[in-house]
Amino acid sequence: MMKNYPLSYQAVDKETEAESHYILSQHNSNGYTVGAPPKKRLTEEFSHTFREFFFHDDPLYQYKDKSKIRQCWLGLQNFFPILEWGRRYNLKMFKGDLIAGLTIASLCIPQDIGYAKLANVDPRYGLYTSFVPPLIYALMGSSRDVAIGPVAVVSLLLAEFLRREFDPTKNKEEYLRLAFTATFFAGITQSILGFLRLGFIVEYLSHAAIVGFTAGAAITIGLQQLKGLFGITKFTTHTDIVSVLHAVFSNAHHGALKNPKIFWVAASAPLISVIVSTFFVYITRADKDGVKIVGHITKGVNPPSLDKIYWSGPLLKKGARIGIVAGFVGLTEAIAIGRTFAAIKDYQIDGNKEMLASGVMNIAGSFTSCIVATGSFSRSAVNFMSGCHTTVPNIVMALIVLLTLEVITPLFKYTPNAIISAIIINAVIGLVDLGAAFKIYKVDKMDFLACMGSFLGVVFKSVEVGLLISVTLSLAKILLQVTRPKIFVLGNLPRTTTFRNIEQYPEAIRIPGVLVIKVDSAIYFANATYIREKILRWLRDEEDLNRHHGLARTQHLILEMSAVTDIDTSGVHEIEELFKILKRLYIQLELVNPGPVVMDKLLSANFIDLLREEHLFVTVGDAVAHCFAKSKDQEEA
Amino acid sequence: MMKNYPLSYQAVDKETEAESHYILSQHNSNGYTVGAPPKKRLTEEFSHTFREFFFHDDPLYQYKDKSKIRQCWLGLQNFFPILEWGRRYNLKMFKGDLIAGLTIASLCIPQDIGYAKLANVDPRYGLYTSFVPPLIYALMGSSRDVAIGPVAVVSLLLAEFLRREFDPTKNKEEYLRLAFTATFFAGITQSILGFLRLGFIVEYLSHAAIVGFTAGAAITIGLQQLKGLFGITKFTTHTDIVSVLHAVFSNAHHGALKNPKIFWVAASAPLISVIVSTFFVYITRADKDGVKIVGHITKGVNPPSLDKIYWSGPLLKKGARIGIVAGFVGLTEAIAIGRTFAAIKDYQIDGNKEMLASGVMNIAGSFTSCIVATGSFSRSAVNFMSGCHTTVPNIVMALIVLLTLEVITPLFKYTPNAIISAIIINAVIGLVDLGAAFKIYKVDKMDFLACMGSFLGVVFKSVEVGLLISVTLSLAKILLQVTRPKIFVLGNLPRTTTFRNIEQYPEAIRIPGVLVIKVDSAIYFANATYIREKILRWLRDEEDLNRHHGLARTQHLILEMSAVTDIDTSGVHEIEELFKILKRLYIQLELVNPGPVVMDKLLSANFIDLLREEHLFVTVGDAVAHCFAKSKDQEEA
Repeated sequence: MMKNYPLSYQAVDKETEAESHYILSQHNSNGYTVGAPPKKRLTEEFSHTFREFFFHDDPLYQYKDKSKIRQCWLGLQNFFPILEWGRRYNLKMFKGDLIAGLTIASLCIPQDIGYAKLANVDPRYGLYTSFVPPLIYALMGSSRDVAIGPVAVVSLLLAEFLRREFDPTKNKEEYLRLAFTATFFAGITQSILGFLRLGFIVEYLSHAAIVGFTAGAAITIGLQQLKGLFGITKFTTHTDIVSVLHAVFSNAHHGALKNPKIFWVAASAPLISVIVSTFFVYITRADKDGVKIVGHITKGVNPPSLDKIYWSGPLLKKGARIGIVAGFVGLTEAIAIGRTFAAIKDYQIDGNKEMLASGVMNIAGSFTSCIVATGSFSRSAVNFMSGCHTTVPNIVMALIVLLTLEVITPLFKYTPNAIISAIIINAVIGLVDLGAAFKIYKVDKMDFLACMGSFLGVVFKSVEVGLLISVTLSLAKILLQVTRPKIFVLGNLPRTTTFRNIEQYPEAIRIPGVLVIKVDSAIYFANATYIREKILRWLRDEEDLNRHHGLARTQHLILEMSAVTDIDTSGVHEIEELFKILKRLYIQLELVNPGPVVMDKLLSANFIDLLREEHLFVTVGDAVAHCFAKSKDQEEA
Repeated sequence: MMKNYPLSYQAVDKETEAESHYILSQHNSNGYTVGAPPKKRLTEEFSHTFREFFFHDDPLYQYKDKSKIRQCWLGLQNFFPILEWGRRYNLKMFKGDLIAGLTIASLCIPQDIGYAKLANVDPRYGLYTSFVPPLIYALMGSSRDVAIGPVAVVSLLLAEFLRREFDPTKNKEEYLRLAFTATFFAGITQSILGFLRLGFIVEYLSHAAIVGFTAGAAITIGLQQLKGLFGITKFTTHTDIVSVLHAVFSNAHHGALKNPKIFWVAASAPLISVIVSTFFVYITRADKDGVKIVGHITKGVNPPSLDKIYWSGPLLKKGARIGIVAGFVGLTEAIAIGRTFAAIKDYQIDGNKEMLASGVMNIAGSFTSCIVATGSFSRSAVNFMSGCHTTVPNIVMALIVLLTLEVITPLFKYTPNAIISAIIINAVIGLVDLGAAFKIYKVDKMDFLACMGSFLGVVFKSVEVGLLISVTLSLAKILLQVTRPKIFVLGNLPRTTTFRNIEQYPEAIRIPGVLVIKVDSAIYFANATYIREKILRWLRDEEDLNRHHGLARTQHLILEMSAVTDIDTSGVHEIEELFKILKRLYIQLELVNPGPVVMDKLLSANFIDLLREEHLFVTVGDAVAHCFAKSKDQEEA
């Protein structure tokens, strides 16, 4: 940092400097003074903070100037968005939605079977999860593009956590009961977060960490499924189908989104390949030659599972813990997907509403033999591509799944596991977002570290470790941000009254005898000491330079506080300390434009009395002009 | 918030406005452009962040331009500050230090006995703790005023945690061994924090939370000791002594600090009253009438306890956990006290150095039968008042304690417990800092909430709950701060080119067709969505107003980004989103003065290409002038 200084000094053109000083000493703000807000009472202050934190989206805006009945109706619409868009629904929209629904249904059936297997439960539970939750989401969800059902990452997470408690083959029944318990608590967690408007918690997981975590989970799943693929080596013809499928599918998410012509091939390929391969295995009875097949799937709609949930004992606690984690991960995924498509189509989704919808659908799901459902990336992308308009495709999909459950499931008996594995591998490959990772690397190296940390944690340890790394690195980043705020020296842009960071603007010149420092952060306990120490270090460096260049010593320290929007008791204390230390060094502290809250608190702490109002300025230019006038008075005296 | 708008509009004086617009349209920054720093490599970026985080205090500054030998000597001084000030030590300083040392010794002996009892160990362990640790601190510590020894809060904490594992009367030996194990790990924790320069961790506990926690602990201790006081009701004369003592002591910390005349009375009262009361009990044999006494204290210097520490098994783990908590609490107290007195005497304390000193003295302590030692508030205050100059009073005190251990301890047998209780109550009353609590209430209501939360947690639940509340509220405050940054609308101060917050400056006027918004925080994952949404809500409100007042719609949104010092991938993404949304609304986004790091990242993300350089300005005035020129062109076309 030191190396910038001499340059900055050398750059001073004597003429420019003189002119600049002339402009500065002429400058004044026409007598404006730094405003302080009227004193707020304790309740007002709390209610303001509370409102800004929980209701910053001003949810009552739409209720303004409306009748009571209208308000009730709007309130009901708030919980069931279908009431709002339902009235504008028309045949044209339904046509689009029907096609989208049929498409995602064809994709979801093989995926459901796969994700159920991934979670170590019978295939039918995957199908159940694509029936009840999507129906509920269709009524309550605010995203028009998200397709609901079991998803790869959550299934992997469930499998990993549940396996620690019960063996999925030996203790099948207990394993399943714990899965329902976890699903119930995932729903409860999500509902509570939505109801208490704690949607912001999801934002504490950084985008970079999510990219890394998801990619890691995808690769873990992919590697697991390779085993399934290798189970077919004896029956060589299948390998070809797989490679063909793979090639086709690879285009599904990336290529197809760009090339709509091959999109329909990609979207329907999974179901077609399932049908073809199942038929093939059935007529050749390849399963007798060693090709592993899905096996018998019980027919019929979701049985109730309310009585299967552990309502007491240590298993309740374990289920709750698993559910909380699964609920969080599910939400993160659903909201990220919802936001992505909402941004493309230019509409807003309400995080809190999404959480509530997610919560209710998972609670209902846990009562009807479902595992945790959330928004699926691959199906949502296909839904979007097929031209969906509302949440109706979820209803269409649910009805197709119902039909499948009631009529066709036994036919899946001969579906080769390898096909399911290929479909899963294909779906999860779309989760490895190399483009995003590269952009993260290019833009922010610290973010890339978080991304790689989460990725490696999942791949080399476990989902849990990966999550832990994600959360830790995200929090560490926040703490890093707040404890080490940026503090820099300002210089004057010659011939203007503007002051800018001398490191960013090489033209900016320092004013002899005056050190202008800008603090770009609220000052509070986590950074107050650092800020004071950093300011004093800037002063020390300045004095070193002054000595080195034979210049006059610093007489004024101007603190540009425009960006200091808040201060707490520790912050006020440290500013007082700074003031006292500077006083002993015969340096006058001048404050420029502290924010309203800061003014209020400096007044409460009687600091303004200490400083006196004449050292409070609206702009840096005013403060510098004042310093010049002071120096001149002293010279004349 | 809405209510401010119409006022602001009504306040516009047509003439002023016209003049203001003239000034603005004339304004230009003489062709300065927003600077972007040269591209940094990955390693540079990491090393810069690393340096700023861990070595922000520029510890190598003093080694600059020095010879190798000199650097080694300075390095040694770094670990042993005594080498530095020792050469300047003289007789006059020693005189002050000797008196201070004798004074704190007289205060520490009864306190040691009391705090040992508080921690449920024999009185002699308290005395041991005032022998070895102060000697080590004298060599390594950087505070000139802190007096080292056992302290009330840490003893209470130890007692609470240790009691959960062993009964202090039935399993005396195991209890003691676990205490030494905890002390060892407290030392290890502190050393590691100091060595890795993680001193900033202590700053995550807010001042307000510490005030509340300490007061709560003090009151808990005080209430416990009242039991000890009531143990003497049979022997009425003692009650009087107690009340006299109490009255005298009450002045010790608050009054005496202001009135040096009664200071000596206050400082020596504890030891004198111990001597008087002990003698009184001895001659009257009041212990036979039910007055509880300290009982036999084994003579002799600290026995080694290396072999008593649990080096393996579950008790190692438990000891480590207790030690980590005790180490943190001890550090927080020591550093807070050190900083307080350093600020009064105007010298700097190095947090990392203090931690290392604390760590080494506790590790050594755990090998020599000591419990956790740290800086004591009451003794440090007395030390300061007695005119200490260096850490020598700690040496004097340690020597007096040594003498006590070798010669006098058996005499304490007849000291009544009530006296010890009174001394403790008096010492801890000083920890209840009502003044600080009141100031916190006045300055920052949120801080006060943290203060009260910690206080009530300790008083009504336990030390652990109180600590948990302190940490949680402190972290919650940081998160609140970062997730809901301040974003506000700027208005022009008529007849100037200055733009200020319209809520703070009622004179500031809005520019028709141009919305100027200032973001006062780094933009990253935890707040990026909020910032975008908030900006769009400001825009919505502005449009509502424009419609209401029949004004032209907004055509330009100027984002003043001077205070945006950093941005991450999520932040860049949201700014891109904002740009796209505004584009659809036919509103042009203009950026003003983004910081160097932000410029760098916007360039990396190719966002500047998207926006084009002509929409990047050095000042808000420039941007507004540009908007005017644009509007004029359109009108003419």
